[in-house]
Amino acid sequence: MAKKLMFEKPLGMRDTLPFFYNKKEHVRKKLTGVIEAHGYQFMDTPLVEYHETVGKMSATQDQQLFKLLDQQGHTLVLRPDMTAPIARVAASQLKNEAFPLRLAYDGSVFRAQQSEAGKPAQFEQVGTELIGDHSSYGDAEVIALLIDSLKQTGLQEFVITIGHIGYVRSLFEEVMPNDEEAVETLLSYLYRKNYVGYRSYVSSLSVPEEAKDNLNVLLRLRGGEEVFEEARALSKGQAGLKAMNDLKQLYRTLEQYGVASYVQFDLNLISHMDYYTGILFEGYAPNVGALLCNGGRYDALLPSFELNASATGFAVHVERLLEALNGSSEVEKIAICLLVDDRTLKQGLQEAERLRNDGERVVIQHRDQVANIEGFSRKFKTVIDVDKEGVKTDE
Amino acid sequence: MAKKLMFEKPLGMRDTLPFFYNKKEHVRKKLTGVIEAHGYQFMDTPLVEYHETVGKMSATQDQQLFKLLDQQGHTLVLRPDMTAPIARVAASQLKNEAFPLRLAYDGSVFRAQQSEAGKPAQFEQVGTELIGDHSSYGDAEVIALLIDSLKQTGLQEFVITIGHIGYVRSLFEEVMPNDEEAVETLLSYLYRKNYVGYRSYVSSLSVPEEAKDNLNVLLRLRGGEEVFEEARALSKGQAGLKAMNDLKQLYRTLEQYGVASYVQFDLNLISHMDYYTGILFEGYAPNVGALLCNGGRYDALLPSFELNASATGFAVHVERLLEALNGSSEVEKIAICLLVDDRTLKQGLQEAERLRNDGERVVIQHRDQVANIEGFSRKFKTVIDVDKEGVKTDE
Repeated sequence: MAKKLMFEKPLGMRDTLPFFYNKKEHVRKKLTGVIEAHGYQFMDTPLVEYHETVGKMSATQDQQLFKLLDQQGHTLVLRPDMTAPIARVAASQLKNEAFPLRLAYDGSVFRAQQSEAGKPAQFEQVGTELIGDHSSYGDAEVIALLIDSLKQTGLQEFVITIGHIGYVRSLFEEVMPNDEEAVETLLSYLYRKNYVGYRSYVSSLSVPEEAKDNLNVLLRLRGGEEVFEEARALSKGQAGLKAMNDLKQLYRTLEQYGVASYVQFDLNLISHMDYYTGILFEGYAPNVGALLCNGGRYDALLPSFELNASATGFAVHVERLLEALNGSSEVEKIAICLLVDDRTLKQGLQEAERLRNDGERVVIQHRDQVANIEGFSRKFKTVIDVDKEGVKTDE
Repeated sequence: MAKKLMFEKPLGMRDTLPFFYNKKEHVRKKLTGVIEAHGYQFMDTPLVEYHETVGKMSATQDQQLFKLLDQQGHTLVLRPDMTAPIARVAASQLKNEAFPLRLAYDGSVFRAQQSEAGKPAQFEQVGTELIGDHSSYGDAEVIALLIDSLKQTGLQEFVITIGHIGYVRSLFEEVMPNDEEAVETLLSYLYRKNYVGYRSYVSSLSVPEEAKDNLNVLLRLRGGEEVFEEARALSKGQAGLKAMNDLKQLYRTLEQYGVASYVQFDLNLISHMDYYTGILFEGYAPNVGALLCNGGRYDALLPSFELNASATGFAVHVERLLEALNGSSEVEKIAICLLVDDRTLKQGLQEAERLRNDGERVVIQHRDQVANIEGFSRKFKTVIDVDKEGVKTDE
């Protein structure tokens, strides 16, 4: 095999070397620890699913699915997210449990990469699903847990931006009652965060000037609870009012949780074209361009698995969180090395046991196997030559 | 979609429900904790690799590889083991580190399943690789660490059976000096543990009766260190003597590690047709039919990635270890539930924080979201009705 090919990996696939693995493990433990402390139960599903089932049900767009053909000609996907497979399990193996269910996951998910753009094809998500709760208390629980989890990792600056798909759809349908195409076009500009395109499309619409103004005012509805009043004035429809009540109730509950300061509202936020059915949210940290975490209410997914249950949840992108934490994550623990030879092995083993009982990581190294003792020693916080330092076996 | 199809998973793929997940997590933490305490550094590699690279280099037989075609027509594999990908990384990104390297992993590996035989297509392995050590001290370190790890999970009865491919090949080549085909045939009977077939093939060979007797005596070479003498008498070749010296030295070192009582020798043990190059071993527990763990020395793998380094390691099959532990693994921790309503939410939140600080897992549940309060309550070790029980907010 050509040397270059020998070391090649499929597009977007990456190795995780020990230094980065340790940083990731540290953050992973913090996140999962907080989630467990809130009584969420971790579970797992296979890394491979049928495209026909979980692939099509997932929130990921078809062209982003990592699709593969198996030997029998079935189209498989490497799981694009954990929400659809967990919904499958909740609607089958767990459907007779008393609801609400509080489930959690920590796993790899996949995206197809079409070019050498340097985007990862495999990444890790830690998240939760609260299944069988249709209230804004449920949304608040999930958002407060997300905020607690992020804080526990040591992340200090971040914002959770909250929107409501019901509000946006209500406003659009009031302005353009029978023009589903225009509604979808506007939603798709918001989804792509293309506000220039949005404004230009609005100005091309054949609706009254006041309606156009209202559509443009939507772009300004960002900030704290002060946006609620303006939003209420803008959309008078039943669905719009209900959405605003949801958001208000959510905010009051987040205040009780003591996390309202991490939250802001953005009433033109559209995280997905047709997955979320109510409140939705995205989290960002100032030093990372990409989305850190996201989630929302997806009341239509479980019914598509024939289970009549509401659901809400979040997912944290672990690698991006690490990027956001940058240097502030705890550095890896470094091991002690005990250098031994044939004669001092036993002595070294006893000393190692003592040190390990004190919580140290200890390598026992036979000196004959080290070619470059200086280079090798640099990997440890301490190197003890068991013979020279006269470690006692019975102290 | 038909209901039946909707819940289907690819052949051999399984969900891990919370109860089993917790048991697995408990065992996983024990294993990884011991391995870290010995200064091994965890790392990870992608779940998908090219068949041409890691697929072909792995110890897994080609028909057992989980092969898939990507959209560009490349043959990919879901990684069959972690040894080959770690060798790839050691030979590229880590090749300038001072050796020996002590690496570890905890990850999913895959096998293609051709029929509904109920075998898993995805399972978890925790293991280690000691790279750049060619001594039997290295083998002893790895075997002692394996034994320590298993003991830490609570497993009490198990045996690590050790063999040496060099001894077997040496004996066969003495008896049939120029008959590579006969050597391979005998090895393949041993690999499949088909001793009847082995004896029958031996009797069909055109070699002296004494040679046939010697080949049959090999099957008896099982037990403690007492087999060494008989083994030495059987094979007088250079390679055979070296192998016996390796094993003797290994045993002495395992005595120093204090783990010799977990070990026995089986000089006709062949774990793989052509992967291992020296000492090899398999671990079994009395109540599980299948292999619990295995490993050995594979000095030819890193050179095939153009790195001149010896290596030895082990892998534990986590699901089978769980089966071996059966009931003896710690049961899952069960959460406390605080039932609240609009008025008592704040009070409940404060109580939850106190309990979580004491290490409890606490669910806050709004009572309006529970349809079946009796069934729901059964999931918790305690359910506290925050209002009725008059939990104080400032005690």
